[in-house]
Amino acid sequence: MTTLLALFRRPDGGPEALAAFERAYAETHLPLVAGTPGLRAIRCQRVVEALGSATDLCLATAMDFDDRAALDAGLASDAMRAAGRNLREIAPGLGTLLVLEPAAELVPEGWR
Amino acid sequence: MTTLLALFRRPDGGPEALAAFERAYAETHLPLVAGTPGLRAIRCQRVVEALGSATDLCLATAMDFDDRAALDAGLASDAMRAAGRNLREIAPGLGTLLVLEPAAELVPEGWR
Repeated sequence: MTTLLALFRRPDGGPEALAAFERAYAETHLPLVAGTPGLRAIRCQRVVEALGSATDLCLATAMDFDDRAALDAGLASDAMRAAGRNLREIAPGLGTLLVLEPAAELVPEGWR
Repeated sequence: MTTLLALFRRPDGGPEALAAFERAYAETHLPLVAGTPGLRAIRCQRVVEALGSATDLCLATAMDFDDRAALDAGLASDAMRAAGRNLREIAPGLGTLLVLEPAAELVPEGWR
């Protein structure tokens, strides 16, 4: 499993700007993402607190693919290209896209 | 489901320092975390690339609890307190701990 993790910083403009971003993300961005070939799962979570520090993050979305080849094919698809263009409109400069690969061998047996 | 997401910046010192951090994380930190009451799952992944930008992150670990009350009880446990002390030894200043709450209503139906 290879995961594309999108981390979003809070937009300027307070709660109203955040609500507008979430609305656009749900109504215009994720429907495009959902059309990506090879996409296995979407987990979208709000960042509600940072423990022991501050954070400027507001949203984290994990998108799972079978492996890196499937992710790369997905990224090259029309759906993901449209999603990328959309993101530059609704959240310019707010997103960071990380590619994550399993590190299950670091986890104690019984928890992998 | 409430998730505690630990994001780790790459330690100074190149690949050897990173390998030493991963070893200490696997051998001393996660075994403590695994003893946390109420912990449901651990997903540990390496950050292998950032798309369209740079990143100083090297590792992301998601720890799932039933809800915020279960996470708070887990954080107050001896296991998690010991894990916190351990983290300040093996990765001082490298970790960010985020509390994530579900935002499934943002995700298209059929993907929730």
